Amino acid sequence: MPATHTDKAFEQDLRDLRERLLAMGAKVEALIAGSVRALTERDSVLAEKVIQSDKDVNRLEVEIDDLCRRILALRQPAASDLRLITTALKIVTDLERIGDLAVNIAERANDLNQVPPLAPYVDTPKLAELAQQQVKKALDAFVSNDVAKAEEVLRGDDLLDALFLKIFNELLAYMMEDSRNIRRATALMFIAKHLERIGDHALNVAEMVVYMVRGKDIRHPLSRNLTME
Amino acid sequence: MPATHTDKAFEQDLRDLRERLLAMGAKVEALIAGSVRALTERDSVLAEKVIQSDKDVNRLEVEIDDLCRRILALRQPAASDLRLITTALKIVTDLERIGDLAVNIAERANDLNQVPPLAPYVDTPKLAELAQQQVKKALDAFVSNDVAKAEEVLRGDDLLDALFLKIFNELLAYMMEDSRNIRRATALMFIAKHLERIGDHALNVAEMVVYMVRGKDIRHPLSRNLTME
Repeated sequence: MPATHTDKAFEQDLRDLRERLLAMGAKVEALIAGSVRALTERDSVLAEKVIQSDKDVNRLEVEIDDLCRRILALRQPAASDLRLITTALKIVTDLERIGDLAVNIAERANDLNQVPPLAPYVDTPKLAELAQQQVKKALDAFVSNDVAKAEEVLRGDDLLDALFLKIFNELLAYMMEDSRNIRRATALMFIAKHLERIGDHALNVAEMVVYMVRGKDIRHPLSRNLTME
Repeated sequence: MPATHTDKAFEQDLRDLRERLLAMGAKVEALIAGSVRALTERDSVLAEKVIQSDKDVNRLEVEIDDLCRRILALRQPAASDLRLITTALKIVTDLERIGDLAVNIAERANDLNQVPPLAPYVDTPKLAELAQQQVKKALDAFVSNDVAKAEEVLRGDDLLDALFLKIFNELLAYMMEDSRNIRRATALMFIAKHLERIGDHALNVAEMVVYMVRGKDIRHPLSRNLTME
């Protein structure tokens, strides 16, 4: 029964793909958390660790891309299976970019750790946690084909945007108050912006999941909102 | 001769794909140029036009994605053809994100047009032009399988980064000089950052082209550099 054999091999490939995407997601979440902890705890050793660990994320990207291409070549999937694989190819790029953003945050944390802190970081870790949750939820939605969960991510993005704006305005106030705050506040602004962008990547993934499951493209009515700040 | 027929149909599909990607690229380039012209010429009508035109880019993304999936399902390409299609799927996402960044710039230009200008914008249009050239060159490299051109893009990114840093430092100086400059300078900083990110997308595309042609993944030694600022 070669058909059954192929089906089983295909199922195994898909399980493999899901597992690797989740592993990559977990790695990326750890980088987000680590990069912000490097900032709040002024831990430059941790920042360096984040910068180094990005290699693992990059390796996973290459492996998952290869796996997707292997599945396409060997199993020639159609319809919803084909959508699953082409979506995975795009999601993996979003995850890799999130890793890059975490590296960016760690690098700026490193710079900020050389100078006295500007203020207690209350909202930045909160923003990081929200962004991390969005990434996790979007990826869970992908591996479990769960539209409801993807829609939670779509709704959750407003919270991130609101918190980013709050941080942005607070930093602006610090800058106005004393010009010696400007350089540090600018660096913190970019960190907050990176976290908000991580949220955008989660949103992109969630939009693709809705499309993958429903076969209907919702990306673009929503993408207009996500570019507003 | 059904094989020849299929080959011809496949060739036609690939031509179609290349043409649409170039059309999307041209559209995206026009958005970059328009968004920065909206800023330098204080033209809010143009800014609004950019914001509206992003719809066309989004439509092109959906169409090209569908075309790629159709080619995968009907032609079941292998080896280098398969790499071409999976690369196109990723490139289209980069182009769409560039469109979003141009919208972001246009929105900030709109805000800045409500207040007196901070300073003559000399380097920002130059940065926009560089970013636009990088996008065009990366896409040309893709459609013509041209590794040498892709490598030009890889080398060209340093110029963008250097110009971004120059603008960033100038804006920082304006902020230090007078706190009334802070809000406008911050908006201009984000615009410059968006342009630099557009350059990063071009770099991503160029890295994928090298991989596509050589079959060797060079993305990650380089991606470390591109995240530095």
